[in-house]
Amino acid sequence: MLARNALIRQHSPLIRRLTLSATPTRLRHSGVTAKQYGGPVGNPSHRVYFSRDNVPLSPWHDIPLLANPTTREYNMVCEIPRWSNAKLEIDTTTPFNPIKQDSKNSRPRYVADIFPYKGYIWNYGAFPQTFEDPEHTDKDTGCVGDSDPVDVIEVGQAICAEGSIHRVKVLGLVALIDDGETDWKVLAIRSDDPMADRIQDIKSLETCMPGLVSATVDWFSKYKVPDGKPLNSWAFDGRAKDADYAHSVIAATHDAWNRLIHSEKETGFALTNTTVRSSPHYLPVDIASQEFKTLTGGLSGQVPVDSTKVPVKWHYVHEGMVTNCSKK
Amino acid sequence: MLARNALIRQHSPLIRRLTLSATPTRLRHSGVTAKQYGGPVGNPSHRVYFSRDNVPLSPWHDIPLLANPTTREYNMVCEIPRWSNAKLEIDTTTPFNPIKQDSKNSRPRYVADIFPYKGYIWNYGAFPQTFEDPEHTDKDTGCVGDSDPVDVIEVGQAICAEGSIHRVKVLGLVALIDDGETDWKVLAIRSDDPMADRIQDIKSLETCMPGLVSATVDWFSKYKVPDGKPLNSWAFDGRAKDADYAHSVIAATHDAWNRLIHSEKETGFALTNTTVRSSPHYLPVDIASQEFKTLTGGLSGQVPVDSTKVPVKWHYVHEGMVTNCSKK
Repeated sequence: MLARNALIRQHSPLIRRLTLSATPTRLRHSGVTAKQYGGPVGNPSHRVYFSRDNVPLSPWHDIPLLANPTTREYNMVCEIPRWSNAKLEIDTTTPFNPIKQDSKNSRPRYVADIFPYKGYIWNYGAFPQTFEDPEHTDKDTGCVGDSDPVDVIEVGQAICAEGSIHRVKVLGLVALIDDGETDWKVLAIRSDDPMADRIQDIKSLETCMPGLVSATVDWFSKYKVPDGKPLNSWAFDGRAKDADYAHSVIAATHDAWNRLIHSEKETGFALTNTTVRSSPHYLPVDIASQEFKTLTGGLSGQVPVDSTKVPVKWHYVHEGMVTNCSKK
Repeated sequence: MLARNALIRQHSPLIRRLTLSATPTRLRHSGVTAKQYGGPVGNPSHRVYFSRDNVPLSPWHDIPLLANPTTREYNMVCEIPRWSNAKLEIDTTTPFNPIKQDSKNSRPRYVADIFPYKGYIWNYGAFPQTFEDPEHTDKDTGCVGDSDPVDVIEVGQAICAEGSIHRVKVLGLVALIDDGETDWKVLAIRSDDPMADRIQDIKSLETCMPGLVSATVDWFSKYKVPDGKPLNSWAFDGRAKDADYAHSVIAATHDAWNRLIHSEKETGFALTNTTVRSSPHYLPVDIASQEFKTLTGGLSGQVPVDSTKVPVKWHYVHEGMVTNCSKK
């Protein structure tokens, strides 16, 4: 508890700073369009790029982390729709950081289906403007960061589409140790989910979606075993930390991103952006558009087919009853 | 145990009779084609009809139950592919018994997704030439039959296509009591599954696919709860019965089908067939073809798009290891 409170104390100025510096204009993410290039998922050249008013955007750098500083809601970039298997992620090393499918032995990568689960069991994505610093050893986990934006597990009913952006409430986190690196998994729910006003924290998450947190830990423990790897391990014995702890982790990783985006050094990351004017990697619209055209071969993108718009509900049956959290 | 052994004794002549009367010619089911009429699943007019050499077939009456009498393998008609939700079933009241989607309040019916499962968790189908007699009270379960062919839970790795026919090995059964009726669920595995030679019975099923039987009981217990119904109950406290017991149930329900298909009475069931010559409902090819044309409006069917041909494997991870039953 001391360690957690120390973390919160350490990062509360950051939370305040985020809150104070955020203006409605900077926080707007409406008008962002995700477009698919290079064919559908499964195609090695598949990419989803982002833009606003035809200005290219990086989903990592140009979408604001905070959606509403007063309510502490965040923007989440959806990478992987629930129940699908393709390992889609923001590419941190290509300019404008498109979402692409990870590959393994030159083949598009899919996570294994592990009984009793089918694919990913939640919508999965990332918080923009965050960075898990590989040179920073977390004092609670004892491990360095995994060089990625912070992962988000979104537990709401609707299946999200690859590249969609959602306002989420943070509920807590679990801390996976993956190949010796800290890999925070923030538990969140879309603010527009029918259950959102009944789920505030890990405790109400367990009441409304019994078994979800333990299934999450079970899923991540096992997900690489079919690839011949051992079970993954966890910080805090796999116990979920609360929302305050999660907010402090997000603030710390936002701070790490801020250092990265302003770094003049060669980092190996693609830091090109079109909104962070104080960054040495900021590009004015005309140059950015030209670079984007070169990257995409001048092809026009297609708005991805969103096959996830069908209303879908995952029912939680507990003691013979559907948990009634969706009813008001 | 007494009751079970008595059942086996009671039905063993039937098993012998099936075995003796079965000739390779009668048992052939190759050349059977399933064709889709009325659009894809989800369309109220969706139907899958069966034929061989352009002669219409009933999947209930004209596909032989036994695939190989020596090895006691059976033919299974796949109705529902694993991980899908549409409640597809052989229509027992329409001539030639097409597969159609059940409806509820005039809408196509889908089973709810219940955490942690996605859709049906196995391939699901029926044994042809079986009938769960609603006028027969089973002496073990104390309940009458549910007026359907016997249901099959096929646990192999490959996802089956709607209307496909597979040779299966029987492993055991569970006895659901659904709305007060006996609804046998036979556990089986495709003979061509990579694990088939390692799974002989309920015990080896548990070794190779740990948790599958209990998940099956959990799934069926809960699957109607989101529709406002109570948990389903089970005969034998939900415990699985062994393969011999399942064979005896299959033989008894085959006998009930034999009585039905030879019945002269009005039963309410569609008993039209093109192979059971001793049945009063047998139709010669020309009349059957004419009736079939009338039923389908003379439209030609489409071979259903089989989107299930991608190799898929459901991994069972137990004590940190993938169960190694697929390795020889």
